[in-house]
Amino acid sequence: MQINIQLIPSPPNPDLLSGRVVVVIDVLRSTSVMTHALSQGALEIIPMATVEEAFQRAKVYPQGSVLLGGEMRNKRISGFDLGNSPREYVSEKVKGKRLILTTTNGTKAFHLVCSGREIFGGSFLNIGAIARRCLELNRDLFIFPSGNEGDFSLEDTLCGGMLIDLIAKEEKKSISLTDASCCAQVLYQKFEDKLLEAFHLSHHGKGLIRQGFEDDLVYCAQIDILDIVPEFKDGVIRVI
Amino acid sequence: MQINIQLIPSPPNPDLLSGRVVVVIDVLRSTSVMTHALSQGALEIIPMATVEEAFQRAKVYPQGSVLLGGEMRNKRISGFDLGNSPREYVSEKVKGKRLILTTTNGTKAFHLVCSGREIFGGSFLNIGAIARRCLELNRDLFIFPSGNEGDFSLEDTLCGGMLIDLIAKEEKKSISLTDASCCAQVLYQKFEDKLLEAFHLSHHGKGLIRQGFEDDLVYCAQIDILDIVPEFKDGVIRVI
Repeated sequence: MQINIQLIPSPPNPDLLSGRVVVVIDVLRSTSVMTHALSQGALEIIPMATVEEAFQRAKVYPQGSVLLGGEMRNKRISGFDLGNSPREYVSEKVKGKRLILTTTNGTKAFHLVCSGREIFGGSFLNIGAIARRCLELNRDLFIFPSGNEGDFSLEDTLCGGMLIDLIAKEEKKSISLTDASCCAQVLYQKFEDKLLEAFHLSHHGKGLIRQGFEDDLVYCAQIDILDIVPEFKDGVIRVI
Repeated sequence: MQINIQLIPSPPNPDLLSGRVVVVIDVLRSTSVMTHALSQGALEIIPMATVEEAFQRAKVYPQGSVLLGGEMRNKRISGFDLGNSPREYVSEKVKGKRLILTTTNGTKAFHLVCSGREIFGGSFLNIGAIARRCLELNRDLFIFPSGNEGDFSLEDTLCGGMLIDLIAKEEKKSISLTDASCCAQVLYQKFEDKLLEAFHLSHHGKGLIRQGFEDDLVYCAQIDILDIVPEFKDGVIRVI
């Protein structure tokens, strides 16, 4: 199995996606929110690239069956039902509901990699489940950290590095790492027992703390607490 | 001082270069060759993006005053005087000569960052001299690893990480690191006493070994042996 990770979230070369398992990562906070919301019984999640598209899409479904959630530059969006904190997505609100989500980085990222063979949403919350699924499929893997508005993201790459580390420990002999995968694994090994410290160092983590979302960092730094693999298929994310 | 490093060698946003010190890094092997050649008395180095441009440019100068050097995918170029191994660039050959160099990644990289305020060529060989010059100038710094044909390069990022680490140790309080700079520094700290091991892990290092250039890896892994700062200005690299 070859494992590649694209350190900058520019649109990937389609050759790098074809026939591969793709894992999209937006630790702070969209893939963490998705995983949490599905664990609370949300029916499905529709990731939209823009706020306008989200409002348009919501009109397609019966009133009351859909919730709009997400953020723009960490701020709640006017007219939306929910923000982008995992703790808002409790079963009382989301069970049986379709969620239409739009965020600065994560929801766009799914559309950028839509030509992958399987596309999963990964975070620290479900990293073990994602690693097990990748090992079962045993195909070449392309990890796509969704970054910070086009830039490299420390926390997303760190999470990608943990996925690489978990897989490499299981499949020692048959793994081939690119230079970028090797770098991400080293980054994870540096911070493996201090994820919160890394979040506090990161550009995005600092921004969230400034805006009062420090609790979200604590929640999103929990490792392997949800046995859920969100899969993006035909424009929709569901549990497989 | 803000320190940024661009992990992928796509053309940088000009805003990231404006008013900044830029350090181009191609450890294996072009910035190592340039530093070594200048230490052996080469007059100046003209980095060209293509072989055709190199031949055209050579015609401008009197015969005997110019040497053509470089590689295409690690191979010597037909009609060129020198390849891309530092050990070829001895004073008997290069002293007082103008070198026209073209390589797969490094020589192109200088042209991509030409709007920087000062542009230096960095490698492990001259990393201390580069760090001292950056500290003297005390301006925001943009590090540009030249990569592997558009991809991330382990050894170039590692060298960028060493530059960050040296500067950060001198200027603890007034340094601001981007997420990418933090990642490069972690990568360096992992391999600081085993650079050759990192070269052996890297995609480009493996290719050079396969092609019989293992000695070049050993040479290029030497730290701080040359007190030389190559500066790119008006299309030409000279010692400053």
